Amino acid sequence: MRKYRVIFQPSGRRGEVDEGKTLLEAAQSLGVDIEALCGNKKVCGKCKVRIEEGYFEKDGMESGMSHLSPVTEAEKKHIKPEDGPGIRLSCTAEVYGDVKVFVPERSRAGKQVVRKAAKELSIVLDPAVKKYNIDLVPPTLHDMTTGDCERVLKFLEDDYGLKNLTFDYEVLKVLQDTLRKGGWKATVTVWMDREIIKVEPGFVETCYGLAVDIGTTTCVGYLTDLNTGKTVNTESMMNPQVSYGEDVMSRITYAMTNPTGLETMQKAIINGLNEIIERVTADIKENGAAGSRAIDDLTIVFNTAMHHIFLGLNPEYIGRSPFIPAVQNSLNIKARDVGLKINPASYIHVLPIEAGFVGADNVGVLIAEEPYNQDEMVLVIDIGTNGELLLGNRNKVCSTSCATGPAFEGAQIKFGMRAAPGAIEKVQIDPFTKEPLYKVIGKADWHTHLEKVNAKGICGSGIIEVVAEMFKAGIIDKSGRFVMGLNTPRVRRDVDGKPEYVLAWAEETSINTDITITQADVRALQLAKGALYTGAKLMMKRLGTTQLDRVVLAGAFGSYIDKEAALTLGMFPDCPIDKVYAVGNAAGDGARMALINKGKRIEANERARWVEFIEIATDSNFEKEFMQAMHIPHMKDKFPNLQALLEKSKSRVEIKV
Amino acid sequence: MRKYRVIFQPSGRRGEVDEGKTLLEAAQSLGVDIEALCGNKKVCGKCKVRIEEGYFEKDGMESGMSHLSPVTEAEKKHIKPEDGPGIRLSCTAEVYGDVKVFVPERSRAGKQVVRKAAKELSIVLDPAVKKYNIDLVPPTLHDMTTGDCERVLKFLEDDYGLKNLTFDYEVLKVLQDTLRKGGWKATVTVWMDREIIKVEPGFVETCYGLAVDIGTTTCVGYLTDLNTGKTVNTESMMNPQVSYGEDVMSRITYAMTNPTGLETMQKAIINGLNEIIERVTADIKENGAAGSRAIDDLTIVFNTAMHHIFLGLNPEYIGRSPFIPAVQNSLNIKARDVGLKINPASYIHVLPIEAGFVGADNVGVLIAEEPYNQDEMVLVIDIGTNGELLLGNRNKVCSTSCATGPAFEGAQIKFGMRAAPGAIEKVQIDPFTKEPLYKVIGKADWHTHLEKVNAKGICGSGIIEVVAEMFKAGIIDKSGRFVMGLNTPRVRRDVDGKPEYVLAWAEETSINTDITITQADVRALQLAKGALYTGAKLMMKRLGTTQLDRVVLAGAFGSYIDKEAALTLGMFPDCPIDKVYAVGNAAGDGARMALINKGKRIEANERARWVEFIEIATDSNFEKEFMQAMHIPHMKDKFPNLQALLEKSKSRVEIKV
Repeated sequence: MRKYRVIFQPSGRRGEVDEGKTLLEAAQSLGVDIEALCGNKKVCGKCKVRIEEGYFEKDGMESGMSHLSPVTEAEKKHIKPEDGPGIRLSCTAEVYGDVKVFVPERSRAGKQVVRKAAKELSIVLDPAVKKYNIDLVPPTLHDMTTGDCERVLKFLEDDYGLKNLTFDYEVLKVLQDTLRKGGWKATVTVWMDREIIKVEPGFVETCYGLAVDIGTTTCVGYLTDLNTGKTVNTESMMNPQVSYGEDVMSRITYAMTNPTGLETMQKAIINGLNEIIERVTADIKENGAAGSRAIDDLTIVFNTAMHHIFLGLNPEYIGRSPFIPAVQNSLNIKARDVGLKINPASYIHVLPIEAGFVGADNVGVLIAEEPYNQDEMVLVIDIGTNGELLLGNRNKVCSTSCATGPAFEGAQIKFGMRAAPGAIEKVQIDPFTKEPLYKVIGKADWHTHLEKVNAKGICGSGIIEVVAEMFKAGIIDKSGRFVMGLNTPRVRRDVDGKPEYVLAWAEETSINTDITITQADVRALQLAKGALYTGAKLMMKRLGTTQLDRVVLAGAFGSYIDKEAALTLGMFPDCPIDKVYAVGNAAGDGARMALINKGKRIEANERARWVEFIEIATDSNFEKEFMQAMHIPHMKDKFPNLQALLEKSKSRVEIKV
Repeated sequence: MRKYRVIFQPSGRRGEVDEGKTLLEAAQSLGVDIEALCGNKKVCGKCKVRIEEGYFEKDGMESGMSHLSPVTEAEKKHIKPEDGPGIRLSCTAEVYGDVKVFVPERSRAGKQVVRKAAKELSIVLDPAVKKYNIDLVPPTLHDMTTGDCERVLKFLEDDYGLKNLTFDYEVLKVLQDTLRKGGWKATVTVWMDREIIKVEPGFVETCYGLAVDIGTTTCVGYLTDLNTGKTVNTESMMNPQVSYGEDVMSRITYAMTNPTGLETMQKAIINGLNEIIERVTADIKENGAAGSRAIDDLTIVFNTAMHHIFLGLNPEYIGRSPFIPAVQNSLNIKARDVGLKINPASYIHVLPIEAGFVGADNVGVLIAEEPYNQDEMVLVIDIGTNGELLLGNRNKVCSTSCATGPAFEGAQIKFGMRAAPGAIEKVQIDPFTKEPLYKVIGKADWHTHLEKVNAKGICGSGIIEVVAEMFKAGIIDKSGRFVMGLNTPRVRRDVDGKPEYVLAWAEETSINTDITITQADVRALQLAKGALYTGAKLMMKRLGTTQLDRVVLAGAFGSYIDKEAALTLGMFPDCPIDKVYAVGNAAGDGARMALINKGKRIEANERARWVEFIEIATDSNFEKEFMQAMHIPHMKDKFPNLQALLEKSKSRVEIKV
C-alpha cells in the first residue's frame, strides 16, 4: 500500500496516509476536526476544504497530475462558484499523492461551549460505595487456618454488621501487602454492601464518585465527594464521536457501514471519558498512584444510541423497526471491562433506558424531576440533540421521543452551528425598522450591524429567537412564509429567488458572507417545534388532560431558550409563563443523584418500567395535529396585550430565565 | 547492553543473551530445560554443563580469553575431577562472550511421565453450569420498551423458574446478533442459577467443564462432559514453573528475590494451563471459534504456594511464620481476569484451602475420600512433593502437613530423578546374593545386571522399594546403617569411605556411572518416612486412637508405592495390609467432583473449615516421636511369617495396588 503526505492548515497537522483514503479519513486519523454532520453520507456538504497544493483543477484533469481523485457528480452539486477555486468535499476526495489542505473556519468543528454546570442537589446521602476503617489484631501461629481475607471479613461483620461480602480479584492481589504496610490498619471500600472493591493502608476518609452524562454532542463528568454529596469538580468535552456523525442516526449508520465503526466509536468515547477522568482528578493524589484511581463509583446516562455504542453493543437494531434495545434495565459493569481508568475493581452503574428511543438520560431527568411525586400536571421537555418529553403526575407518567431533527442544535440550518464561539445566540429585531440586535458567544455585548464581531453562524437558541423575532416583527407570517415588500434591504431574495432575512452583513462576520435566515431554515424550525408540540399534545390527549400546570425545560440547551420566544413560536402547549422554568442539565442531575443515593437506582429501574412510552408517530391523530402544530400561533391568542409586549421586546436586552 | 550468542547442545537451541546473564538464565530464556532443584540458590549442583567452545579453563584464566565469568569457590565444591574438563554450574557461570554449551543427560529436566489418569466417579450430576434452550417470540413495535435481555430473562423465569439472573458483559455484547442469527432460538448457559455466561444461536446440547490439578511438578486437566459427568479427555504437562525451583520453598524464594519473579511464574503456569486447555479441546469445534471457548466452567486445586502464585498473590507470607494465607475460602474469578482462554465470561472456581500449609489439593482429597462420612478411623496420605495427612471419621477429622522433604520424589537423593524415562521405579533384591532386579520407566521388562537398559537414576517409588529391599536383604539394619563385610561387590565404600550399594553398574546406564544408593540417601528417606509416620502418630494421639482401620494412599505417586515396601519401611502406623489401598489422584477427583456437583463446593468450604489443622512441629512430643519413627521397624513385628514373605518377594514381578 502506497502512502502519501498530507498537511492540514491552519493547524499544521501532517502525516502519511494510505493511498485511496479520503481527506476526511486523513483528517480524523491526524486529529484534525472537520465537520461531518451527515456521518460521511456525502449529503451535507459541510466538510468543504480548499486544496492548496497537489490539486490542479484544470491542468490536473488534463495532464493527469492531480493528487486527488476526480470531482464526482454528487460533489459538484455542493460546490458553488462563490466557494472559490480548489474546493473539494473532504468526505469524497481521495488521496493519490502528496497534498496540502486548508480547512476553512466554517468547516472546522469548533470547541463546544459547554453549558452543563452542576447545580446543588438536595438529596439524602446514601452512596452505593462506602469506606470502612478496620483495625485487625496481627495474626499468630494459631491463626494459620484463617486467611487475610477471612480476617477482614470477620472484622467487617463484627464491627459493621456487613455479611457475605466478596473480594474483587484485583483487591485480593494487593490485600496482604496493604494490611502489613498499614500495620494491620486499613480502609476497605465496599460496593452495595456486597463486594470489597478497594483496600488502602491506614485510615482513609476521602471517597469519590463520578457522575457522567454522555450527550450526542457534549460529555460532562461531575466529580462528587461521596462523604458530602457535593460536586467538587466538573470537566467536559465535545463527544469525540462527532467526527463520525453529528447526530444519532449518522453514528448508527457509521457503525453499520464500517466493519470497525462500532469499535472505533466506542474507543473514541472511552478515550474521551478517560481524558475527562484524568482532568477532573488532576488535583487528587491517591497513594502515589494516578488520582483517577480514587474514583470508586461511576454513574452514567446517555441516549439509547450513545448507550449502545459506549458499551460496544450493536446499535443497528435500535436504528430500525421495531427499535429493540439490547437491554432495558440498569447495568453494573466492572470499570476494567470497559477500559475506564478509575479504580479497576469499581463498577460503572449504567442507568436503565425507557425504550428504543428514550434513553438513560431521560431516566436521569425522570428521577431528578420526579413528576411521579407531583400533584400538578407537569410537562418535562429535554431538548438535546433529540427532543424527549415526559408528561404526567403521581397517577401516571408518559414519555415519548420527538423526531425534532437537529434544527434546535443548529444543524440543517444554512448558517447553523453548535454553541461555539462566533455563534449568534440571542437576537432582537426592531418591529419597525426590522434591524436586528444580536449577541455572539464569546463577546460580552450585544451588537448591531456593521460592527466587526466575527459572527460565524447561529446556534440553536439563536435560531429560536430569530424566528420568533421575525414573526413578531412581521417578517414572516403565522404559516412561516416570508412577507415580501417590506421597506428593508434585509429581506431579499437569494440567487434562486427564495426569500431570506439578513441577520448579519458579511463585514460583521469572520466568514465574509452575509449570515441569513432562509425560508428553508424557518421551515426546519417549524418542523422541529411542530414535532415537539404534537408530541406534547398527543400525550395530553392520552392522559385526558387539556391544561399544563407546569413546563420544565431540561437539558443544557433548555437553560438558554428564551421562554417568551418559545411560547411565541408555540414550541409547547400553553402554560402560564411564570410556570415555565429551566432546570439545567436534569439528565446529569439524575446521574449525580444515583451516585449520591443508591435508592435512586432502584427508583430509576422501577420508574423506567412504570413510565408508559407512547409512540406518537403511529398515533392516528398524528398527521392532523402535526399540520396544525407547524403554524406559529396568533400572537393575540397568547399575548392579549401585543403592543405592550412589543415595547417590552424593544427595551429588552437579556432576559434571565 | 552487549549481547552474546549462546548455543546449547544437544538440543541445538541458540540465541542472543545479555552480557552478565547466567547460563541457566540463558537456558530458561531459550526454552532449554536444565535441572535447577535448589531454585537457583547455588547449592544443589544439579545444573552442571560442559562448555564446548568459548571457555578456556587454563589458557582463558591467563590470557583473559574466557567468555565466561571465573569459577567461584562455591562452584569448585560441586565440580569433581571425574566430571571431566570444562564443567561449570550453569546457575553461576555468567556470559561474557559467545559460548557453546553441552547439557549432559543427567542435568536435563526430562519430560515427566504423568501418572494422573482419571478414574470413574460416582456422584450425582448437578453442575454449577447448565444450558437452557430458549425460543422467543420475535419482537414487534409494541415491545420497544423491552430489551433483548429482558426478553431472555422473562423466558428463563417463565419456562425454567430462574429468577434475578444477570448478564455477563461479554454476553451482552453478542446477545442481539446471536438471537437474530438463531431466529430467536438460542441456548443460554447459566452459572449457579445466577449469571448468564454464554448465549449461542439455536439449540446446543454440549457443555464442557475442566477440572484442573496443578501440582508442584505436574499439571493435569480433565475435560468433563457436564451432561454426563464423564471425563472425555485428559491432558497433562510438567509444571513450567519447575525451571524456577523444584519445590515449593524454592519458588517462594524465587518470588521473593526476583522483582518480577511472581509475575514470571504466574505467567508460566497460566500459559501452561492454556496449553493444556488447547490440547484437551483440540477435537471440539465451537461455532467456528476455538474449541477452548467451549469450556464453560473450571475447578482447580493446588497446594497453597501454587494457589498463591497462580492467582498472582504474594507467596511470601505463607513461606514464613505465622504462615498466613491471603485467603482461605473458595473463590470464583472470571476466566478473563486471570487470562485463561476458556469462555471469557465463565468462572474459575478455586477450591478453599485448609491452612497455610494445607492447600486446596488436600481439600480435593478430603471431599473425594469423605473421611467425615466414615465410621472407620481412616488415615489418608497424599504424597506429592509435600506429604499431607488427613485422619479421622465422622466425629472429627484432623489434617497436617509433613515436612517430608522431596526425597519421596527423588530429590536430595544422589541419583534421584523425577518419574521420567530412564528412572528405576521398581526394585527387588535377592536376600541371599544381594543381586538386584529392577524395572526402568519406558522399558517393559525387569532387568538384572549387565544389561544395557540405559538407566539414568531412581525415582521416588524406586527409592522406597530399594531401601525396603536393602533392609529385607540385610544390607542395612533397622537404624538404617549399612551392614559391611557382606560377600558382594555391590556393597562398598566410596572415595570418602562412606558405604553405598551399587544398584546398577555403569555399563547398564546411559550416564556411564554406577548408580548407587548411599548412606545419605538412606538417611534422607528415613527422615521423610519418619516425618510422615510422626505426623500420623501425633494425630492419632490427638484423636485418642491407637489403631487405624484403613490407610488410603492418595496422590499419583501413592498409586505406585509398593504397599509392602511402605509397611516394611514403616511409612505409616500399622494397619492390616488388605486395608491399605491406593486411590490415585484424589485431589484431582475432588476437583472433578466439584465440577460435576456444585453441592460439593459448599461441602468443600464447610469441611475445609471443619477439619482441624494440627501443627505437629510445635507438638511437645514431636522430637521424641520423630527419633523413634526414623527407625525401620523389626520385620517380625509386622510380618510374622518372614520366610514366606521373602519367597513371595522373590517371585513377585509387579504388584498391582
